[in-house]
Amino acid sequence: MSESIYVGVDLGGTTIKVGICNAEGQLLHTYEGPTQTDQGVDTVLGNIEKYVRLIVEQSSYSWEQLQGVGAGIAGFLNVRDGVVVLAPNIGFRDVPIQAILEERLGKPVKIDNDANVAALGEAWAGAGKGVEHCVCFTLGTGVGGGIIMNGKIYQGFSGMAGEVGHISVVPDLEAIQCGCGKMGCLETVSSATGIIRMANDAVERGDRTSLAAVDKIAAKDVFDAAKSGDEVSLRIIGRAAFYLGKALATTAALLNPEMYIVGGGVSKAGDILFDELRQVFAKLTPEPLQRGMSIVPATLGNDAGIVGAAGLILRS
Amino acid sequence: MSESIYVGVDLGGTTIKVGICNAEGQLLHTYEGPTQTDQGVDTVLGNIEKYVRLIVEQSSYSWEQLQGVGAGIAGFLNVRDGVVVLAPNIGFRDVPIQAILEERLGKPVKIDNDANVAALGEAWAGAGKGVEHCVCFTLGTGVGGGIIMNGKIYQGFSGMAGEVGHISVVPDLEAIQCGCGKMGCLETVSSATGIIRMANDAVERGDRTSLAAVDKIAAKDVFDAAKSGDEVSLRIIGRAAFYLGKALATTAALLNPEMYIVGGGVSKAGDILFDELRQVFAKLTPEPLQRGMSIVPATLGNDAGIVGAAGLILRS
Repeated sequence: MSESIYVGVDLGGTTIKVGICNAEGQLLHTYEGPTQTDQGVDTVLGNIEKYVRLIVEQSSYSWEQLQGVGAGIAGFLNVRDGVVVLAPNIGFRDVPIQAILEERLGKPVKIDNDANVAALGEAWAGAGKGVEHCVCFTLGTGVGGGIIMNGKIYQGFSGMAGEVGHISVVPDLEAIQCGCGKMGCLETVSSATGIIRMANDAVERGDRTSLAAVDKIAAKDVFDAAKSGDEVSLRIIGRAAFYLGKALATTAALLNPEMYIVGGGVSKAGDILFDELRQVFAKLTPEPLQRGMSIVPATLGNDAGIVGAAGLILRS
Repeated sequence: MSESIYVGVDLGGTTIKVGICNAEGQLLHTYEGPTQTDQGVDTVLGNIEKYVRLIVEQSSYSWEQLQGVGAGIAGFLNVRDGVVVLAPNIGFRDVPIQAILEERLGKPVKIDNDANVAALGEAWAGAGKGVEHCVCFTLGTGVGGGIIMNGKIYQGFSGMAGEVGHISVVPDLEAIQCGCGKMGCLETVSSATGIIRMANDAVERGDRTSLAAVDKIAAKDVFDAAKSGDEVSLRIIGRAAFYLGKALATTAALLNPEMYIVGGGVSKAGDILFDELRQVFAKLTPEPLQRGMSIVPATLGNDAGIVGAAGLILRS
């Protein structure tokens, strides 16, 4: 009779967002409060506990209905043991957060990195609802993502699987160095950072583009210019889409997913991006692997992290 | 008290090889007989049954100790339902082989494609013994392979995961068309076929190489020439190793395996191949993904298929 609920925590450097989901991944309530990273690890842990208790108290659900708490955290994690190895943005180093929160809350706790958790959110209750095998690409400042197999996050040997932003796709002649130290990663071209860099390069080269009139180019400026027919902007988005298509084709041959989910700020470019992406993918992927397969935009937006975190309890 | 045994079947177009493994994947007995493809599906199925019964009878084990039979088959399979959709080399089309053999043998039967089964064999009892997450590349006429996750073959959405030969790695300018219809697949450069093609190209171009004196170049001729210091042959193997290294780097970012296992005829090139491969991989892979990771030669040779087939019963 009494419905089960799950709390997801999106632990950011500035704010902690918490949300209650039901067993279908529907986000029922959210609450947001300051992280207070400057006041140390204990304060941050105390805030997580406080916000989790608060959101359940303020809801129509009882504490007994809460089945567990999941948290998405940016940084190096030991997912298996529930330890934050290093998370500079919240000032955590070697914090056994799972054990501490389980003790304080008296509920099962799971953690995973923010990109994996967002992927799980989309797979569980967003664009991928009902899909068992999907790969998510989140095109933001960098390119994050996650691999969902048999409905669960795939971790790999040391918990680092799903680094889709570091698939090598750019040929050596055109490749630039990625933040990871390697050359030609997807992240160097298909992220907002990559798009802005290509736009600035074009302006500096003196290419004829409406972007030349923009003071400080943002990815959105490139999308807007492209939508107005600016050839240079169309070419830049085409290039981002081309390399993303190559990365998708590579993962298709390896993982044979049912669905690709593409989210993050760059996905807001819309059809200009997705049309090219689907064409490149179709060209580079053996036909049998394309059957029954779809490439779709993410649907949960910023909520994907909270929803996926809540889903960790059901899907680990 | 009574040890469990597992029979693996390597169902080829000319011969059927069967073998008995114990629960550790040790290959205890083998038997080989003709497939008799020309005598139709029923004869082939009858031969499988006959050889399975025969090898158990001739061993010191009883039929009761047999836990099940696995078969590796080249072709399009519906693994979940145990149906051979299309296998031209044995003349099977829409044959529900699992149900038929389970009925005839009174034991559980599992099937999978030959490349996946060889990968499982190496992971279970060969180079990857004790490893939960590994990716196998078999460099033969083509490039086959398989992904082992949590100790099992990863199938993907429609059973086509692990097509490592069709990772796109060759830049467009140098790419040639693959048998799958796409351009620049790994198989076009790192297979025996790819090596022979590059060798013939070099000879036709008039490159100074000892291969010019060889009548019909085989991959082994290229390895031998390379070992004798032939620059052209070294360059060809270097190129095969380079693109294989790129493919490994890509799978590392996605799957974070603990081990890569490289087998097949081309792997016989030995250190010339593996040294270059490890260097390219190290250059293209983010350092954290390299930690604890190894690239090793396959150890079971042609037995990998039988062993892995037997392993299907334990590892599905």
